[in-house]
Amino acid sequence: MENACKHLKTRGIKPSYQRIKIFEYLLRNRNHPTVDMIYRKLVPRIPTLSKTTVYNTLNLFIEKEIASIIIIEENETRYDADTSVHGHFKCRKCTKVYDLDIDLSKIDIPMLAEHSVTEHHFYFKGICKNCR
Amino acid sequence: MENACKHLKTRGIKPSYQRIKIFEYLLRNRNHPTVDMIYRKLVPRIPTLSKTTVYNTLNLFIEKEIASIIIIEENETRYDADTSVHGHFKCRKCTKVYDLDIDLSKIDIPMLAEHSVTEHHFYFKGICKNCR
Repeated sequence: MENACKHLKTRGIKPSYQRIKIFEYLLRNRNHPTVDMIYRKLVPRIPTLSKTTVYNTLNLFIEKEIASIIIIEENETRYDADTSVHGHFKCRKCTKVYDLDIDLSKIDIPMLAEHSVTEHHFYFKGICKNCR
Repeated sequence: MENACKHLKTRGIKPSYQRIKIFEYLLRNRNHPTVDMIYRKLVPRIPTLSKTTVYNTLNLFIEKEIASIIIIEENETRYDADTSVHGHFKCRKCTKVYDLDIDLSKIDIPMLAEHSVTEHHFYFKGICKNCR
């Protein structure tokens, strides 16, 4: 809890109890959760929590660059405390989202050089190693 | 119009007037439109058109694999008649979405080999060549 608190402070985020708990959830569960998943897990212990608070808190984390947004499906926004460049693979069968290490030096897309790129998103779908 | 009609038929889609017009719009305007953009462009000439029809038609095109879905922003689903593997770059300033040619043989992501991949999505954000 102290670590999460410290991390929020260094990014200029006032560390309220709810914010700390939401950030801790993201750090501990690398499961790319939706607002709903986080809300359902935390509300038994924080009865005053609302989905709007979870949503606003995650948007604050994104603005302050301590979390990133993953949009693979329409109407299913997920969040990730890992803000480094990496990719995602979503299994159509078990719906699990896997992280993929990505070495940008091994990604050759010549047309990208024309623009000034600040965000890289790579996602893939199919059947995962455990389901096929 | 005949070409669009023929193309819909070969994919087992009953070529109604509205479906043909929506597919033609996608083919002619490679602008990655949203449901709203297509609706606003077509409704002056097709007063009976509804946003729901545009939405359902696009979903049918995706199911039949003559269009693909592009999700770069939350709550902003775009559609593309180009179903080949390619990437997208969205400019934060002018909001234009550019196509990027992608040669999969030049994309090296070792962890992907573990899974069976059916969909590849690459998108990037930043400032485009015309805005920087």
